[in-house]
Amino acid sequence: MKPVILITNDDGISAKGIRYLIQLMCQLGEVVVIAPDKPQSGMGHAVTFSNPLRLNLISSGPNYLEYSCNGTPADCVKLGQKVVLKQKPDLIVSGINHGSNTSVNILYSGTMAAVLEGAMESIPAIGFSVNDYSPIADFDHTEKYILSITRNVLQNGLPHNGCLNVNFPARQAEGIKGVKVVRQGRAYWDETFEERKDPRHRKYYWLSGEFRNIDSGTDNDEWAIANNYIAIVPIQLDMTDYAAIKKISEWNFND
Amino acid sequence: MKPVILITNDDGISAKGIRYLIQLMCQLGEVVVIAPDKPQSGMGHAVTFSNPLRLNLISSGPNYLEYSCNGTPADCVKLGQKVVLKQKPDLIVSGINHGSNTSVNILYSGTMAAVLEGAMESIPAIGFSVNDYSPIADFDHTEKYILSITRNVLQNGLPHNGCLNVNFPARQAEGIKGVKVVRQGRAYWDETFEERKDPRHRKYYWLSGEFRNIDSGTDNDEWAIANNYIAIVPIQLDMTDYAAIKKISEWNFND
Repeated sequence: MKPVILITNDDGISAKGIRYLIQLMCQLGEVVVIAPDKPQSGMGHAVTFSNPLRLNLISSGPNYLEYSCNGTPADCVKLGQKVVLKQKPDLIVSGINHGSNTSVNILYSGTMAAVLEGAMESIPAIGFSVNDYSPIADFDHTEKYILSITRNVLQNGLPHNGCLNVNFPARQAEGIKGVKVVRQGRAYWDETFEERKDPRHRKYYWLSGEFRNIDSGTDNDEWAIANNYIAIVPIQLDMTDYAAIKKISEWNFND
Repeated sequence: MKPVILITNDDGISAKGIRYLIQLMCQLGEVVVIAPDKPQSGMGHAVTFSNPLRLNLISSGPNYLEYSCNGTPADCVKLGQKVVLKQKPDLIVSGINHGSNTSVNILYSGTMAAVLEGAMESIPAIGFSVNDYSPIADFDHTEKYILSITRNVLQNGLPHNGCLNVNFPARQAEGIKGVKVVRQGRAYWDETFEERKDPRHRKYYWLSGEFRNIDSGTDNDEWAIANNYIAIVPIQLDMTDYAAIKKISEWNFND
């Protein structure tokens, strides 16, 4: 029996990245697509419980179902499981994101929120992103690796009910050097706000910023994609700083 | 010199929880409040870069500044630092959230997204939540402990540039038993969707769900608040599953 693969993204159902990913996944299993009807980048792990959610059937055929949804990527995964499939899929894949989701971007990314939803429910899940923000980004260099990574996950499952954050470099003439299984790099966004005035002379601000890599290691996702490798980071949901528990336990909380 | 404390939340600037927290923090330092002008629960780590952000001055006095903002909790922290203060605050506090943010709720919570923003910028940050969803929740049992935890962080800083996720039980007649410094519990949301039809007979869905604790340990945040202890979880940003790196490195990616 073919595996059931649930696909979503955060760039919206019409994005080139998800269309590319759908075509690859149809080679591997029965596919159910539930993706946001508009771009949802930067939505993080937002979920929609104060507004009604709607599903809009786009396409239905043998081994294929496609819906758009007015919610976030995390909503799409929840609806896919509970309303459309009425059971757990064998795999969740999210992307291909137009732009990288390395390092702390896992926390801002709707693409990766969908993947973390998988881990929360012990469903194997993979997020794919390419370090190219163009809406017409080239994804041909990812095909072979997306198929191979996905086949591995379908065969082996994922350790500790975790999930994978997979980032590709942008396509380069020389071709990808290979795969690195690495840790999440240390980096942050150094924001700048551009101040403007509206026609009523009231201030408003546009958020932008520069991504700052502060990791000097060579065993992390930022290093890997900067050096034309694919970065695979195995992800787990526990954010506890275990080494800090003892130290903080020694504090006095009675004064 | 008094420390500069930046306060935000996700229930919105008028919520009882943030008003209570402001009053406590004014005992400890100079206070700058920048909080969402409407409730932002469940917004996760959403950031606003496709719409302009606005700040609305509410109050200004000696050692006190208060703004509402049309953005998310993460936006509030970014604006507070870069536009209002034009420097890093000494501390970020977020809350008091009406409702707990234990376990994986750290990923859904706007309150905790603001705190994680602090960790990303190496600013000490604490999220406070009470396991009582009522808009008129009682916070009096938190006062002593919020002051003591905050004083400890101002004096000692936080290990490894991390942050704290602090959850209080709802107020009970017997009084709080004490503080436990613990790990993030294992739990998930088991969603249900209520299907309804609009006046044009088209289906829509309301997301709701039950929180399922699957952690049998007694050293985690869920156990602590269920047993009338305050749960302090030290948090760090690295979500890498280090134990999985070796295993996945052995996969064959060339087929």
